[in-house]
Formats: sequence, C-alpha cells, structure tokens
Amino acid sequence: MNTPDHNPALDLAFERYVELPAEKLWAAWTTPELLLPWFCPRPWTTIACEIDLRPGGIFSTVMRSPEGQEFPGIGCYLELLPNRRLVWTNALGPGFRPVPAKEVEDFFFFTGIVSFTPQGSGTRYGARVVHGTAEDCRKHAALGFEQGWGIALDQLVEFMKTR
Amino acid sequence: MNTPDHNPALDLAFERYVELPAEKLWAAWTTPELLLPWFCPRPWTTIACEIDLRPGGIFSTVMRSPEGQEFPGIGCYLELLPNRRLVWTNALGPGFRPVPAKEVEDFFFFTGIVSFTPQGSGTRYGARVVHGTAEDCRKHAALGFEQGWGIALDQLVEFMKTR
Repeated sequence: MNTPDHNPALDLAFERYVELPAEKLWAAWTTPELLLPWFCPRPWTTIACEIDLRPGGIFSTVMRSPEGQEFPGIGCYLELLPNRRLVWTNALGPGFRPVPAKEVEDFFFFTGIVSFTPQGSGTRYGARVVHGTAEDCRKHAALGFEQGWGIALDQLVEFMKTR
Repeated sequence: MNTPDHNPALDLAFERYVELPAEKLWAAWTTPELLLPWFCPRPWTTIACEIDLRPGGIFSTVMRSPEGQEFPGIGCYLELLPNRRLVWTNALGPGFRPVPAKEVEDFFFFTGIVSFTPQGSGTRYGARVVHGTAEDCRKHAALGFEQGWGIALDQLVEFMKTR
C-alpha cells in the first residue's frame, strides 16, 4: 500500500514494543468479541462492534461514557494485510460511500493505520492517524490520542495474554 | 469487494455494451497517455493525468474548459481488480488521507466504480458513482453524468479501436 509521508501538522503517531505475537494483535483488532474488552480506555466501555473484514466492509463501534452517553463511530476498511497491517477510515462508510461531515463541534475525519511488525519474541506495534486538516489533527490530539491509544494497548495486552 | 446496495437517491449508474475487450477498457482507464484523449467530452480536454495504480495511490486529472479554465480533480484508488473493476474516490487523497471539503458551490464527494464484464465478442461496461448525500448526487446529475460519461465512452471506443 501507499502511505503518505508523515506530516507532523496533519498526523499523529504512536509506537511501542509489546510482548504479544502479531497474530494475537491482529485477532484483537479484527474480532468483535476480542475487541470489545480493550478498545476504549476504562471507565469508558465499548458496547458494540461490527466488522466485515474486507476492503469497503464496515468497521463500526459504539463507545459509552461513564455517564452513559453513547458515541457511535462508523467507517470502512481500506487495506488489510493479515497479521501485519490494517487501514480504515471514517471518511467512507460501507461500500466506500463518502460520509457527510457531521455538524458536531468535535467531529473529525481520519484514516487509521495500525501495523504489527514481529520483533524478537514480541511485536512492534505502530498506530498512525492521518487527517485532512491541521484543525482535525488538533481535535484528535486534544481527545488524548497518544494517552488513550496507550491505555487501550495496555488493556489489549492484559486481555490477550490470557487468550 | 463490498459495494453498497444501489440507492437511487444517492447513486447514479450507467451501463452499456461496447465492442472492445475488457483489457483495452482497463488500459484506457489506467494509462495516462491512453486516458487523456477520451476522458472529457469534447470540446473540453483533459490536459494532465497522474496514476499510481495501487490502493491508496493517486488518481488525478486536470480538465480544461473551452474557455481555458482548468479543473483539477484529485483522489486515490480504493480497489483494483485488473481488467475487471476499478474503484476510486475523491474523498481521500494519496495515502488514503481525508480530503477537506472544498468551499466551492458545485463541489461534491463521490466514489466511482467502473466495471468491465466480458460479454460475447465485447464487454459490458458499467459505471456507478455513489455519494454521501442526495444533494451531492443531484449536483453530479446536474453536471450531466449520464450524457457526459456516454460521450466519453464513445470517445474511448473510437480511440482504442485503432490501438
């Protein structure tokens, strides 16, 4: 696949070594029942997930705040390289249909690229989110991208180590 | 790949039998020097084309009106099934980066799906454009989608028959 050059004004990236094989990371990202337990930093929860694992197939989640407010997110897969990399976006819905911009203050479009590179007895885990505007990138950073994805990854490792 | 159900409020479609093998239609769609001569109904012209034929790779054209005004279009490929189907969108740029909406009255996002199905001695040619809103679909229809794509296809057949 073709990824754009890293643009620090438009992209956020995060990388870490984890003691899990790439296959377990892939499974945790692509199987709804293995994704629900870790995807959202607690005390937030992920209460629904739909996955149709093919380009143009749906990837949707519903996150719930501690106060009970629900935040649905819907998008589609763009590229799938089993056990190595997955790419999806919320700018296109199922069947690659363009998604209308939502008139919500903190809404933004992004494409997510998660990669799993075998290293020693574990895996180098990379996450990158790319945006169309610096404002969208700032919104994503303000949500706590790096901290949030880091906590979610801790939860993933904890959960998958027992599987 | 996964295509959404046809939604007449959001999609435009066009189908025709042509006396060309699918391989020639594919070549005309995926090779800049074979695309420039037919892509835009005359007296409009296509003066530039960039193609990086892989998911996430650029697909861009510049069309020029008879008055000399230039209209660049940029997007990326989503799925490529050689000689059978290509899918691209202008809602994502190279590397699948979301494209900010343009503050231009007649701008709209779409995903295009062009298919080539061998039939007898020729090919059934299908073109479908899917949109996120009925307004975007109306804008595309108002540009003369069916007539425009029909004329461009006539130009393609005329040009490729001699190749």
